[in-house]
Amino acid sequence: MNSTAFATAHPNIAFIKYWGNRDQALRIPSNSSLSMNLKELETQTRVSFDSTLKEDHLFLNESLESGTSLERVSILLERIRKMAGIDFFARVESENNFPTGTGIASSASAFAALSCAASSAAGLNLSERELSQLARTGSGSASRSIPGGFVEWQAGEDHGSSFAFSIADPDHWDLVDLIVLVSLEHKETGSSQGHQLAETSPLQKIRVEDANRRLEICRKALLERDFQQFAGIVEQDSTLMHSVMMTSNPPLYYWLPETLAVIRAVRSWRKDGLPVCFTIDAGPNVHVLCPAAEAGKVKGKLGALESVNSILECHPGGPAHLLDPEISGV
Amino acid sequence: MNSTAFATAHPNIAFIKYWGNRDQALRIPSNSSLSMNLKELETQTRVSFDSTLKEDHLFLNESLESGTSLERVSILLERIRKMAGIDFFARVESENNFPTGTGIASSASAFAALSCAASSAAGLNLSERELSQLARTGSGSASRSIPGGFVEWQAGEDHGSSFAFSIADPDHWDLVDLIVLVSLEHKETGSSQGHQLAETSPLQKIRVEDANRRLEICRKALLERDFQQFAGIVEQDSTLMHSVMMTSNPPLYYWLPETLAVIRAVRSWRKDGLPVCFTIDAGPNVHVLCPAAEAGKVKGKLGALESVNSILECHPGGPAHLLDPEISGV
Repeated sequence: MNSTAFATAHPNIAFIKYWGNRDQALRIPSNSSLSMNLKELETQTRVSFDSTLKEDHLFLNESLESGTSLERVSILLERIRKMAGIDFFARVESENNFPTGTGIASSASAFAALSCAASSAAGLNLSERELSQLARTGSGSASRSIPGGFVEWQAGEDHGSSFAFSIADPDHWDLVDLIVLVSLEHKETGSSQGHQLAETSPLQKIRVEDANRRLEICRKALLERDFQQFAGIVEQDSTLMHSVMMTSNPPLYYWLPETLAVIRAVRSWRKDGLPVCFTIDAGPNVHVLCPAAEAGKVKGKLGALESVNSILECHPGGPAHLLDPEISGV
Repeated sequence: MNSTAFATAHPNIAFIKYWGNRDQALRIPSNSSLSMNLKELETQTRVSFDSTLKEDHLFLNESLESGTSLERVSILLERIRKMAGIDFFARVESENNFPTGTGIASSASAFAALSCAASSAAGLNLSERELSQLARTGSGSASRSIPGGFVEWQAGEDHGSSFAFSIADPDHWDLVDLIVLVSLEHKETGSSQGHQLAETSPLQKIRVEDANRRLEICRKALLERDFQQFAGIVEQDSTLMHSVMMTSNPPLYYWLPETLAVIRAVRSWRKDGLPVCFTIDAGPNVHVLCPAAEAGKVKGKLGALESVNSILECHPGGPAHLLDPEISGV
């Protein structure tokens, strides 16, 4: 028996961040979050369940993986095998068109595409909600890469109630994410480990308690395309997460000097009237957000900064979906 | 009638920070704090109450001041006039041997020296506790520049219960503060204004609630000269304060890229076994702390960083005290 499926998913940038779990194993998050899929970036993943295999095989960008990456993938495959009642191992081939481990959430698109492809190859026909729940167990933020456009992940309380859904289509607001790469080094502490440190910061409790306030302000600003409101809450939410990180035990300092140079530049441009703001994931790179109409101007100003290595321009992206396994890619 | 007194005081560096007041006018702080006086830096202040003056005059580093600086001084002088039952105006001449407004708490030494000189010139004979209370009303952290060595400022609840006292003499621990100047620009938002923003951060409440835990760990580490314990809590406390600042409304980002470069260097040196840590006041400069035995080595490493402008080396300093008005200085 050999059954293959092929899928694609975009990473996403969170405007209201996910940091810390109330259930580590199932990745039930401590707070709800809100994000946008990134159209220009994608992971394509092919999964073949094959009765001749003796174990799962994982190829990332054509290189055979072992250790933690393979383990995390196998745990998800095991969950799917149980759901489908099959016991074949799988060959997984996954490719990103963007650098991994630098604050662009590669695990989000990876586990979204994997969930999509593997569940299909296993003969399951899952709903968007079920795919989001499944992807969440592989990487929390992957739950947000299943639906399209602007996405809310409701924290929920258990596996059934913790999933993501679209709150607006990609064409609702042509918001641009200019991803400013200040470093291509692989980060020292990955997000999965980092989430486990969240509770060691004295600030995490209040960050979580205050999260619904921030989410509501952000959702409203987004639905009303109110950039000024959006900018203030997105920056506060990002810095709240980094405050938790920097005061955890051990502390995590993801910001580089170059990160702060971009933060300060963006804040001064907004003070001067330009609609632009920043948000930063668990890495040193800065996501600079602005309406599409201003993207050229902002990109020019960013390019003139000494601290900027390169810039990726991303627009709102669609949902994870299956691709024809015969025609392209991996 | 002409009555003159002359006094000196050191600024101090807080290991457990003061940020936010429960009473703005009297500067009753939201939490207790802990600091060390800085021997090599000082403010010298001469005060003359003079029946021929029509108003208070303030000279800072030989330049005549008006506006906010003069107002703050006059409010303190008015308090002293009431206590002493006099109604003469005063001429105040104050000099610092260090740059003002760059995160070295110049208002602390200024209001400590002023309290000392002005109360004496007014014929008052105040105790250390009364001087600390008086200085606090001019600038909160000035209360900590009255006693000598390592100083705790108990928050208290009102004017009578909010004052500072020594917990160890200057010779208790030869701790060195290497003040790394990364910028000499005057900061955009002074501490007095900043304190009023503290409550607008969602993090301030928990920072204050958690303050006694940090103070007790820090006091114990200091009394036991336990550098490892000291380093961890001092850095956490500093970053907690900056987390409140960066998430207040409007946010205050005091860190420059160069600040973060020093933070990261210090953390990596400690990871490699060198006893060194950082703390940062309401400005961009970094106070790098280490035992005196390591100061040469640390200074050499700091000097090699691109981001470092210059370094001031400070050891534990004594209390504010009167000087002979005939012999020296201003």
